[in-house]
Amino acid sequence: MTGQGIVVSEVGSFHTGGRIVSLRNQPRRAMQVAGSGPDRIVDLNGDYLTGQCYVQFIKQLRPRSATPVMFWHGGAMTGVAWETTPDGRPGWQMFFLTRGYDVFVCDAVERGRAGWSPFPEIYEGRPIFRTMNEAWTLFRIGPQGGYAADPARRIVHRGQRFPVEAYETFCAQFVPRWIDHADLTISAYLKALKRVGPVVLVAHSQGGSLALEAALRRPDLFRAVVVVEPAAAPDLKDADLAAASRVPHLVLWGDFIEDDPLWPDYRRCVERHTRELVAHGGTVDTVRLPEHGIHGNSHVPMSDRNSDEVAAIVEQWIGRHLEPAD
Amino acid sequence: MTGQGIVVSEVGSFHTGGRIVSLRNQPRRAMQVAGSGPDRIVDLNGDYLTGQCYVQFIKQLRPRSATPVMFWHGGAMTGVAWETTPDGRPGWQMFFLTRGYDVFVCDAVERGRAGWSPFPEIYEGRPIFRTMNEAWTLFRIGPQGGYAADPARRIVHRGQRFPVEAYETFCAQFVPRWIDHADLTISAYLKALKRVGPVVLVAHSQGGSLALEAALRRPDLFRAVVVVEPAAAPDLKDADLAAASRVPHLVLWGDFIEDDPLWPDYRRCVERHTRELVAHGGTVDTVRLPEHGIHGNSHVPMSDRNSDEVAAIVEQWIGRHLEPAD
Repeated sequence: MTGQGIVVSEVGSFHTGGRIVSLRNQPRRAMQVAGSGPDRIVDLNGDYLTGQCYVQFIKQLRPRSATPVMFWHGGAMTGVAWETTPDGRPGWQMFFLTRGYDVFVCDAVERGRAGWSPFPEIYEGRPIFRTMNEAWTLFRIGPQGGYAADPARRIVHRGQRFPVEAYETFCAQFVPRWIDHADLTISAYLKALKRVGPVVLVAHSQGGSLALEAALRRPDLFRAVVVVEPAAAPDLKDADLAAASRVPHLVLWGDFIEDDPLWPDYRRCVERHTRELVAHGGTVDTVRLPEHGIHGNSHVPMSDRNSDEVAAIVEQWIGRHLEPAD
Repeated sequence: MTGQGIVVSEVGSFHTGGRIVSLRNQPRRAMQVAGSGPDRIVDLNGDYLTGQCYVQFIKQLRPRSATPVMFWHGGAMTGVAWETTPDGRPGWQMFFLTRGYDVFVCDAVERGRAGWSPFPEIYEGRPIFRTMNEAWTLFRIGPQGGYAADPARRIVHRGQRFPVEAYETFCAQFVPRWIDHADLTISAYLKALKRVGPVVLVAHSQGGSLALEAALRRPDLFRAVVVVEPAAAPDLKDADLAAASRVPHLVLWGDFIEDDPLWPDYRRCVERHTRELVAHGGTVDTVRLPEHGIHGNSHVPMSDRNSDEVAAIVEQWIGRHLEPAD
């Protein structure tokens, strides 16, 4: 796939969004902060940049598509989800590069390279973390209670395509998150979109929910929206569904949903939303992979053994929905 | 510089290091974790992967150098430090790509995309955060007390090359850190080096201190070590200085050190170390940029307006010290 290489003009990144918040009245501490160096006063009082997101880009010298693809990851994850598979194969970022797109991979507010802020002083409350136990079930790798510390004793859904032998590597990617930061994240993401210009957005899980919401707020910033296993749908109060309906949507689902206690509800919630878009004249294609003869995908199809096969479905759909100008 | 583009064979990433730790007896909470989705029980009990670092790579189809360059960032920062300058010019990553090197950019344990762990349950104590106030002085952009919330009122060192108009963007990159994780980080980094093979390491500030230590422990994993403004030097107890001395070292310093209350001590500490390496037959070149007629560099020369000029000094030194086989 990469035999010829891709001709890259620039690799770089930027942050968008965020604001400055000041902390006062924090205790000062003398600490040795680096190796055998001398002590230094650590003083948390002062100004912090908070609420920004991170956008990494790879631009090609001669992209085949004038419209880039932007990626938003899901909860507990970062842009790494698009960069590699847990078993070390190239991720969807590389797939879309080889298909001629410029790619922009984001880390949401407070995740990965976006930076994060003192709490509870700036971010209220505490972050939540994802255990290896929870992810095993929530990502539909195996049934509830199927995780065990001993890899040999883990119970896997029959026909599973997730590379279970690399589960530890997958979990090495996990980062915590705050549950009340959706608005903060959408706000930073919209600033990234304004800077990049209209994109094809590919978003996973929690990122998919944010994408559906962002497309309601600023449909002009999207040429198409692909949501892979979105975890929820936006509140439609005050939404301009007619405007959002002008953006073609693809919703993609993996396997084992009926075997899970939570995912049928999540999917119903999303499908209520997409029916509204269709009722307002929108184009929404829903692909349930098993109904297309593709069985065994987990909640993270971009990590599964057939990740390129699923990417090709997405890429073909995108190709059909980009305007001729692209 | 990038007019011809670089021919990239693969962009990807991996994590190395870390271990599994279990949490028990944490309270379970019901929370709405995604948009308008239903509540879910958040249960922090279970297994976590902790202590890994993150390594992102860009490999060229036909690298001119057989030895790649690996980058380690400094305290409060992530790999972003090498990826872009605050004012949006290409970073040293791009510089070394255009010079024909494969590049590996790391995020240290607990920083950026490396992931981080519940605390105080797994990581002991609390992280420390860097304020915009502290960085202004510590990164030698301006004198102590020179930071002000109002950019127009900030006091800048005379002749400063840091792009002060982009200071907010620079601070958007900051992430917190734990002060006791140097061993954890070196351990994960050494695993990354074992996977990649011997590299030219370019490391900044706290990362520079870790690099000096790592080169003592496993000199066989380095072809050369470039430390840019290292913040401390390793403890020499039990160190095999003769072995480490076989790795050529370049130590690079910016400007305004004598104007600062802390940096003269940090530099003395590092220069004691490099004198030991030289005493054991090592090759250590020290470049104090002002003594070479290059004035005005801050603590982050890869961010400064003349970042490419400083990178060229580093690259020429590397070229002289790579073995002919490269």
